[in-house]
Amino acid sequence: MKKMINNPENVLSEMLEGIAKAHPEYLKKLENANVLVRTDLSKNKVALVSGGGSGHEPAHGGYVGEGMLDAAVAGEVFTSPTPDQVYEAVKAVDRGKGVLLVIKNYSGDVMNFDMAKDMAEMDGIKVESVVVNDDVAVENSTFTTGRRGICGTVFVHKIAGAAAEAGLELEDVKRVAEKVISNVRSMGMALSSCTVPAAGKPNFKLPEDEVEIGMGIHGEPGTHREKIKTADETTEHMLDKILKDMPLNSGDEVAVMVNGMCSTPLMELYIVNRKVNEILSALGVKIHKTFVGEYMTSLEMAGFSISVLKLDSELKKFLGDTANTPAFKLIK
Amino acid sequence: MKKMINNPENVLSEMLEGIAKAHPEYLKKLENANVLVRTDLSKNKVALVSGGGSGHEPAHGGYVGEGMLDAAVAGEVFTSPTPDQVYEAVKAVDRGKGVLLVIKNYSGDVMNFDMAKDMAEMDGIKVESVVVNDDVAVENSTFTTGRRGICGTVFVHKIAGAAAEAGLELEDVKRVAEKVISNVRSMGMALSSCTVPAAGKPNFKLPEDEVEIGMGIHGEPGTHREKIKTADETTEHMLDKILKDMPLNSGDEVAVMVNGMCSTPLMELYIVNRKVNEILSALGVKIHKTFVGEYMTSLEMAGFSISVLKLDSELKKFLGDTANTPAFKLIK
Repeated sequence: MKKMINNPENVLSEMLEGIAKAHPEYLKKLENANVLVRTDLSKNKVALVSGGGSGHEPAHGGYVGEGMLDAAVAGEVFTSPTPDQVYEAVKAVDRGKGVLLVIKNYSGDVMNFDMAKDMAEMDGIKVESVVVNDDVAVENSTFTTGRRGICGTVFVHKIAGAAAEAGLELEDVKRVAEKVISNVRSMGMALSSCTVPAAGKPNFKLPEDEVEIGMGIHGEPGTHREKIKTADETTEHMLDKILKDMPLNSGDEVAVMVNGMCSTPLMELYIVNRKVNEILSALGVKIHKTFVGEYMTSLEMAGFSISVLKLDSELKKFLGDTANTPAFKLIK
Repeated sequence: MKKMINNPENVLSEMLEGIAKAHPEYLKKLENANVLVRTDLSKNKVALVSGGGSGHEPAHGGYVGEGMLDAAVAGEVFTSPTPDQVYEAVKAVDRGKGVLLVIKNYSGDVMNFDMAKDMAEMDGIKVESVVVNDDVAVENSTFTTGRRGICGTVFVHKIAGAAAEAGLELEDVKRVAEKVISNVRSMGMALSSCTVPAAGKPNFKLPEDEVEIGMGIHGEPGTHREKIKTADETTEHMLDKILKDMPLNSGDEVAVMVNGMCSTPLMELYIVNRKVNEILSALGVKIHKTFVGEYMTSLEMAGFSISVLKLDSELKKFLGDTANTPAFKLIK
């Protein structure tokens, strides 16, 4: 797999520099940490911090800005950020109203974010955390106890971010984040592997006519491999798995995210969305808002994930509020 | 190359359906044409119509909405839309103030949009057109006399779109569009090919250690092939070619777009942007705004393009105005 990079050892630092140079109106890099923080921290509100291993861009640096994250901590590629880095992020963005950590459910992330929480609390900073585990594919996985956290995390950023921006207190922002987590389900699939720059070879190999269903965003095994099927058949299977886990009834309202893993053209994501829309509409489910694009990727993997978020009036309101970040903008 | 589709013959219609279902707040599909038009056409203003072959998503359907296009005409994959389709788009969006056609410089597009212009003028609709030819790589190409039109077209949509939204008359919107065209230069490169669904095999083959410099968005040949170099070396060469064609002086202001062709991770695009920023900054050029992402793709091609737009106060104003479309949002 060809990569347009310089030295594999420098991809993280050079990427962060490239992001900071591209978006000074939104964010800046902390001097001595791999942390992107909002340029404008003047508003007195609860702060949101997320992050994880790199290689999932635009997650999470692309979501730093108004109405979403106050800081994103970037680990090395597919590697949890260390506790001291998360701690630096928390210190940089706390304005006295406390900090909510949004953690994807990978053992390393959970451990390191928790240690950072302890460190910050010893400084007297109020810190709460939530763990996102939206992936219905498998129960435990390579780096995870319980379900993995994948693209549904972006809904947590958006909605909890809006709640914080609206002035809710830490306990309430956490409550809203937890409601999103309990209402969102996702599932992914891959047509091809990703390649970690330092490794230089694909994480796994798929025969030319096979796909992996339920794959994780680091190439963790899914439920099974199969001969490639049509977009409609594949979508139906994935959505079926989501709906088995979170049944929806006629009249329910949802938001949908069809997320590209990187190398899948937008054309194909829209063909998938056509089927998602058809299936949900046939059930009488109302699709309040649809997002199609690359929200949480896996280096150059081809494939996609579907996320479904069940809405109530509170989630709907915060989902609809203004967001203004490099990778996610919503105009109220 | 695996594709997540149903039948290759239906990719266009199914994609358009998927787009329309995803974004009803922005656009709808015309009943009997492959045209996406703004849902809200109530404002009395000059209308902008663009389009071309499909396979470059989000171009151009993703740019239909406030402050950009009023309609996008979608041809089959890598195939110009027919004159009657463009004509339907023009009729659908004209509100008496005339229509500006934004055409990428490919012989088929120029011919078919021109025929549609003639047809609409016979109906008494005022129509003007501009042809975008921002690609500095080669003078003539497979489907083109003169330079090809590539990602700089998105700047034309954004800025002429804002001019129309601001109430300028047709002649003036055309003048602004032409100023963007004369001030923008682009150049691309590819690490891998694209595959047209109906063909089922890659448009061309690149050895595992080679890249093509100056490649077009349909896989047209560029200036040369070479062994893959570092991101910095490649960026320097491409920007050098752009700056030879449009010299910039200390104090000049520009907007930069680093565009992914599809399969190149955002991580790599940001590493490229780091170098673009370094080179322009060393020249004393002021980077007013940077866009990094996928704006004009080529099915699943890996690679990227760089576009540089030289700004004056008028272009800067319109670039900064609100845009609200599925794929391009800017909050003033």
